[in-house]
Amino acid sequence: MANMKILFNPESVAVIGASDKQAKLGFHVMKSLTKGGFAKKIIPVNPGGIEIMGIKAFPSIADYDGRIDLAIVVLPARLVPGVFRECASKGVKGIVLITAGFKEIDDPMGADLHDEIAGIVNQAGIPVIGPNTFGMINFHVELNASFTPEFSRLKKGGICLVSQSGGISHLLGFMAMRADVGFSKIVGLGNRLNIDFAEMLEYLMDDPDTKVMVLYIEGVDQPRDLIESAKKYNGNKPIIAYKTGKGRVGDHASLSHTGSMAGRHGIYTGALSQAGILTVDNTETLLDTAKALSACPIPDGPGVGVLSGQAGPGMAACDLCEAKGLKIVRFTGNTQQMVNELLPPLALRTNPVDMGPAWYDSSAIKEIIQAVMDDDNVDGTLILMMFASANVGAVSGISDLLKKWAQKKPVISCIQSPPGIWDEQIGALEESGALVNYPTPERAARAMVNLWEYKKIKDRMK
Amino acid sequence: MANMKILFNPESVAVIGASDKQAKLGFHVMKSLTKGGFAKKIIPVNPGGIEIMGIKAFPSIADYDGRIDLAIVVLPARLVPGVFRECASKGVKGIVLITAGFKEIDDPMGADLHDEIAGIVNQAGIPVIGPNTFGMINFHVELNASFTPEFSRLKKGGICLVSQSGGISHLLGFMAMRADVGFSKIVGLGNRLNIDFAEMLEYLMDDPDTKVMVLYIEGVDQPRDLIESAKKYNGNKPIIAYKTGKGRVGDHASLSHTGSMAGRHGIYTGALSQAGILTVDNTETLLDTAKALSACPIPDGPGVGVLSGQAGPGMAACDLCEAKGLKIVRFTGNTQQMVNELLPPLALRTNPVDMGPAWYDSSAIKEIIQAVMDDDNVDGTLILMMFASANVGAVSGISDLLKKWAQKKPVISCIQSPPGIWDEQIGALEESGALVNYPTPERAARAMVNLWEYKKIKDRMK
Repeated sequence: MANMKILFNPESVAVIGASDKQAKLGFHVMKSLTKGGFAKKIIPVNPGGIEIMGIKAFPSIADYDGRIDLAIVVLPARLVPGVFRECASKGVKGIVLITAGFKEIDDPMGADLHDEIAGIVNQAGIPVIGPNTFGMINFHVELNASFTPEFSRLKKGGICLVSQSGGISHLLGFMAMRADVGFSKIVGLGNRLNIDFAEMLEYLMDDPDTKVMVLYIEGVDQPRDLIESAKKYNGNKPIIAYKTGKGRVGDHASLSHTGSMAGRHGIYTGALSQAGILTVDNTETLLDTAKALSACPIPDGPGVGVLSGQAGPGMAACDLCEAKGLKIVRFTGNTQQMVNELLPPLALRTNPVDMGPAWYDSSAIKEIIQAVMDDDNVDGTLILMMFASANVGAVSGISDLLKKWAQKKPVISCIQSPPGIWDEQIGALEESGALVNYPTPERAARAMVNLWEYKKIKDRMK
Repeated sequence: MANMKILFNPESVAVIGASDKQAKLGFHVMKSLTKGGFAKKIIPVNPGGIEIMGIKAFPSIADYDGRIDLAIVVLPARLVPGVFRECASKGVKGIVLITAGFKEIDDPMGADLHDEIAGIVNQAGIPVIGPNTFGMINFHVELNASFTPEFSRLKKGGICLVSQSGGISHLLGFMAMRADVGFSKIVGLGNRLNIDFAEMLEYLMDDPDTKVMVLYIEGVDQPRDLIESAKKYNGNKPIIAYKTGKGRVGDHASLSHTGSMAGRHGIYTGALSQAGILTVDNTETLLDTAKALSACPIPDGPGVGVLSGQAGPGMAACDLCEAKGLKIVRFTGNTQQMVNELLPPLALRTNPVDMGPAWYDSSAIKEIIQAVMDDDNVDGTLILMMFASANVGAVSGISDLLKKWAQKKPVISCIQSPPGIWDEQIGALEESGALVNYPTPERAARAMVNLWEYKKIKDRMK
């Protein structure tokens, strides 16, 4: 565990296989480290290199005089045992092994190599991320130990992704860039030499940067370990999992890809759920749920107030909420009276409230939102509004008022406009913690559903 | 029907209630028309105006000497009966009535006004879009007859949206702007004075610009009419519907909002399905499905070939396909042999194929894709790849080759990269008809599922 901490927070990083040739992964790893803003020592290691990206290189780590905390290895598989022995004698504290070609290849030589290198690092007590991984990123120390420099574009945040797929990790990263969602760490487990989900969960339990754990799972060798580690959270931090390999084909693919059988999907999800893990069934809901859980207070109950600028999006949100166990509550008498006074005798003054008729009266809008949020029956509020140039003026008042609210209850929104019209304001509102915004009413509603699902898990795990 | 054609393709448009004050909807309607590029005659009508946005205004339509095909009305409700009588005597062919305050208000005066104006136009044979609508847009003649100038940012395409909600219409429009999806028409039915879903379906059946009908439904007065009109399509054009008002609350909201009871949701969706309408359950799937149906050939069968750049996204797509009735088929012997020759003995050479190991060999990638697409067992292909700077070079070869393929079978993809890295190339590929791209593997898979669902409807309705 002490070494795990150093692995993610090293004072010095060696790139074994560093290169200045763009066709080599060692080039991209060096770029990730240097462009990613890592402020500590970087040591390129390459037998032929004198200097790589303006940094003095060494033929081997033995030739470097100082301490090496983390070694990122991007060499052909056959060279890895030798390098691992060097790392052990140098006193390296952690390794990211990007190289592929171990257990996952059909050739038994791969499995043999896997066992050989596992033996070396396990004896030396060195935790290893990989092999067959893109790497890992610790955003809070600007450490991009991956072959993808673009991960450094992501902002810092409270979500830690631990993933068995490079493709899914990159996808979620790209989605998060577009949705402005921030991460604490992204870890590509690869073929898990000695760090699996269980070890990551144990390590991250007390990581102050991580508020929400996100797992992408294909198959695990020791499901029991994962389950036991998750249970130790006691629901104190949300753990969300997306598990693929449901069908016949996916199950087979998992065996080939990760070297582990995905197993009967139903048994898995049942066990995950019992361990206090919230399961979702696609990448979009995975990121949407993580975003809500990292930014919102958890609702006390299933009561939702739905406020919309137009009736349709409100109805779409109500449908999903009702189908998934949330309650579109009756307001208390005071709230209802206030809403009735503020809206003309047009439709939808009970929950959901269509604020459309008060569109141009921002003080009325403000009072309605305030009254509904304060209502004792309301545990969370959904705000759904579409703005174009004809009504965009009405928004500025709401923006100021939303920023002022304390975050006692979750406010989840789908506030949308043509590109360029209100993107910045929404970004600023999200940044200020006033609300969490989604592209559609149904995705906003689903995020509220999953806040409530987590609350139920939290209560059950106590 | 002749008048419907003129309504959507007018030679002259009067805006009754045109204004140069930004706080008035009549200002935004004028802006939509003028900025939207409408090349025919525009006639602003306002008792006080001499000129609006540089165009000569008239106190009333009677004061204008020429013919008026379409009148867009943005006046207070109480003035509408008088204006409608003027329209009738002037020989106006169609009306877009943006004004609200008729049947949907609690006051019986609203219903009375509704009946009064309905009587006038029904006698004169004038089709009316509205009341209580944002308007309509016919993209193929650059006619933006709505109060939202930004609708004109949308590109021309084959999708016609007919909607009971302004909020949902705007939302879908904004989503389409971001996803670069094109429309033929967008029609806000509002409170349906004499044009309802049934009339729109009848009119659009032979509209050469419309390839796919998209309906957003809350509740309809004459469900039987809608069903009968839909049946007349015989599956020749896809009709996709999203119906809200599932739950207790939504049902009540529908009554208030549209003046129609949403009715028992199950009965509705059963009837819609029997009429050959493909139903979906959220706005995202609605647009995703419309996009695929407007751009892709329809698959002959449920057999899918899954090609991925990384295993995870392929597994996610396979899971959804298998759960929703598609088949991840076995390749024919020739295809499998070719794939085996082109990929090293690493995992996933059977369907799904993980092309990752051939990442830097674009001729191998090309041959694999070609072989799978040509395979007799494959009715459609899913391509799922994540690109960052470390592997973006591998894409150019694929891009050229995809463009060359004839569109005999659907190619649906989730090809994603950090913003700015590959957006343009993907846009160009979509533009050229080579593929249809989605933000996640599951959404790509769902689009393929719905192509197959439409094929089944088409066969059943013949």
